[in-house]
Amino acid sequence: MRAALDVAAQAAAAGEVPVGAVVVRDGAIIATGANAPRRLHDPTAHAEIQAIRAAANLLGRDRLEDCDLWVTLEPCAMCAGAIAHARIARLYYGASDPKGGAVEHGPRFFAQPTCHHRPDIYAGIGEGEAAGLLRDFFTARR
Amino acid sequence: MRAALDVAAQAAAAGEVPVGAVVVRDGAIIATGANAPRRLHDPTAHAEIQAIRAAANLLGRDRLEDCDLWVTLEPCAMCAGAIAHARIARLYYGASDPKGGAVEHGPRFFAQPTCHHRPDIYAGIGEGEAAGLLRDFFTARR
Repeated sequence: MRAALDVAAQAAAAGEVPVGAVVVRDGAIIATGANAPRRLHDPTAHAEIQAIRAAANLLGRDRLEDCDLWVTLEPCAMCAGAIAHARIARLYYGASDPKGGAVEHGPRFFAQPTCHHRPDIYAGIGEGEAAGLLRDFFTARR
Repeated sequence: MRAALDVAAQAAAAGEVPVGAVVVRDGAIIATGANAPRRLHDPTAHAEIQAIRAAANLLGRDRLEDCDLWVTLEPCAMCAGAIAHARIARLYYGASDPKGGAVEHGPRFFAQPTCHHRPDIYAGIGEGEAAGLLRDFFTARR
């Protein structure tokens, strides 16, 4: 999660909402993703999507059954769907997101009967620092 | 929807589940997307995501408030989330998808209080042909 938090801080420095993600395989980080929709002109460029796309491209396949995803914020519906499509084994996330999260809030995607893959889920890891990055970012922009 | 169905047929010819999408702005198609997760080694490469990313890249911004999306199949949670993030004005789709759809099934994403943008939604357009493409594809692979 340390690496994901560092990526989130880099996103903030680039003027993007600070969320960071990393994909881990066999104990090693194989891809990172920083939230960057504005900079990349890509509404799908959330940290999780960036990290998953990079990992899949690196491994040359569209399924990441042997990979874990670490992300600083509770995934939204788009990212939760991508995590299921990628068959991510374990999902570790930091801060809860009552406004846009889709794991413990709103659609509760992984609890739906139509969800075809549910990773093992570990929430609240590095939560204080992850939430602090977001709070500082939005405070500075007000 | 004719153009989206043609793109779906091309996806089938490439060995991918036949789903196609187009983004329309001011009455003109500005981007198309074919479902291609296997070919591209990208679990996020659904037709809608491909079309939205191409349109946003073309327009040089991450919001497509003045664009409509036409897609041959009911969007999944990932794609419904992307449609909301992109602020798509109108969503037109063909076949319903009881197994993976997230508009009228499962998470019913746009009906959630945490959904921050809901397009106008028109379902069942070109439904017969869209469903036929999918049926033929899966029958041929059995």
